[in-house]
Amino acid sequence: MDKEKTAKKVYKAALIIIGNEILSGRTQDTNLAFIARELNDHGIRLAEVRVVPDEEGEIIHAVNKLRSKFDYVFTTGGIGPTHDDITSECIAKAFGTVVHRDPDAVKMLEAYYQKGNITDARLKMADVPKGCALILNPISGAPGFRMENVYVMAGVPKIMQAMLLTFINDLEGGAVVYSKTVEGAFGESALAPRLTQIQKDFPDLDIGSYPSMKDGQYWTSIVIRGIDIEQLNNARNAVIKGMEDINVQPSWVD
Amino acid sequence: MDKEKTAKKVYKAALIIIGNEILSGRTQDTNLAFIARELNDHGIRLAEVRVVPDEEGEIIHAVNKLRSKFDYVFTTGGIGPTHDDITSECIAKAFGTVVHRDPDAVKMLEAYYQKGNITDARLKMADVPKGCALILNPISGAPGFRMENVYVMAGVPKIMQAMLLTFINDLEGGAVVYSKTVEGAFGESALAPRLTQIQKDFPDLDIGSYPSMKDGQYWTSIVIRGIDIEQLNNARNAVIKGMEDINVQPSWVD
Repeated sequence: MDKEKTAKKVYKAALIIIGNEILSGRTQDTNLAFIARELNDHGIRLAEVRVVPDEEGEIIHAVNKLRSKFDYVFTTGGIGPTHDDITSECIAKAFGTVVHRDPDAVKMLEAYYQKGNITDARLKMADVPKGCALILNPISGAPGFRMENVYVMAGVPKIMQAMLLTFINDLEGGAVVYSKTVEGAFGESALAPRLTQIQKDFPDLDIGSYPSMKDGQYWTSIVIRGIDIEQLNNARNAVIKGMEDINVQPSWVD
Repeated sequence: MDKEKTAKKVYKAALIIIGNEILSGRTQDTNLAFIARELNDHGIRLAEVRVVPDEEGEIIHAVNKLRSKFDYVFTTGGIGPTHDDITSECIAKAFGTVVHRDPDAVKMLEAYYQKGNITDARLKMADVPKGCALILNPISGAPGFRMENVYVMAGVPKIMQAMLLTFINDLEGGAVVYSKTVEGAFGESALAPRLTQIQKDFPDLDIGSYPSMKDGQYWTSIVIRGIDIEQLNNARNAVIKGMEDINVQPSWVD
């Protein structure tokens, strides 16, 4: 095993999705998958996600639990102008500070809204925790913000994505995790013993087996993840060999 | 306020989504929204969701945290036949017990697979925590199970859904939460002050404001949730009146 690689820091992140609309099943979250893939491309692994309601105690608890456990915490939702947008207040309390009206945030809102259109409600979106750094909102003006390792973003996917892309290149990450996939029309139990052996042979890789149904037939995707391309290729070839030994031709290899 | 209603117990549940494939962004979860809506129809509110990796310590920690905090805990994922399916083992450890091969679970597998097709790998799916009650799997044989208030289900949506529907009618729930929605082509900040007032006027209701973009225009959905239909209708009418007062006609009312 390469000592330098094992010694290298693995960067981990958590995501807190704030919103009753996700917990009620009204809105299908899509932010998780987008953030996960972007982080992965930058050498950061999404290691935990929590969905919490628009309740102060729950939000503060989750923020404080996760910001001490992970390198980065991202939040989505609850930074708009209405009464149910309480994220700024909660983040301030989690860090033992208060919200204040940030002059730079006011300028961002003024630049976005036409003159005379800055209402009290809109100005609420310039109320952020004291000491935070603002996150640019290229879509609709009102900024997100960062407190230490906690990045607070909008919940609307298009706005969240634009915010994330303004700062993700600046995040310190580790080795990028790559993946290889082998799929075929078989039930995963047929390959289970062989897969256990392959996982043992490649302890640095994560091998996942994901069953599904396709046109009424069993279908299994084997996904191998790791940072060493040569190991990944060797493990992938071992999986293909294993499938051939049970008379299954891989239907898709990536 | 109706005393009987306020005294009535509110049933709350948590969901633990177990799976690296969700955290990597490879798979888009859809189980959350399905479970949320089914629970809601049965008077149980989904109050927290955690997505955790296929790691024993993380799973056990989440299960033990949430089962003491909520009336019900549901888990999805990790109960298949492969090496990465560690949920049964983790649930057993969380409850201080061990897994054993359950004779009834073996019978379920025997009933599903044709004679001679019961392999060691498949039998692994009959290994469940001692003392659990089995959950029927109407799709693919291998059962889920319940330990006290923790319901363990498959991750494949079709199988999870079929499992949930076998027992959800037996769950004790409270009042069903209903919702009313008013939507229109306006930015949510325009209605923010009025909405704050309406929320104050109806403290028993949850009023959420959800902005989005529709054909390049601002769009806002006001969602009102609560158990009292009359209050809901009154609050909805107050929202419609509020919109009309800022010269917005509701585009959609439900």
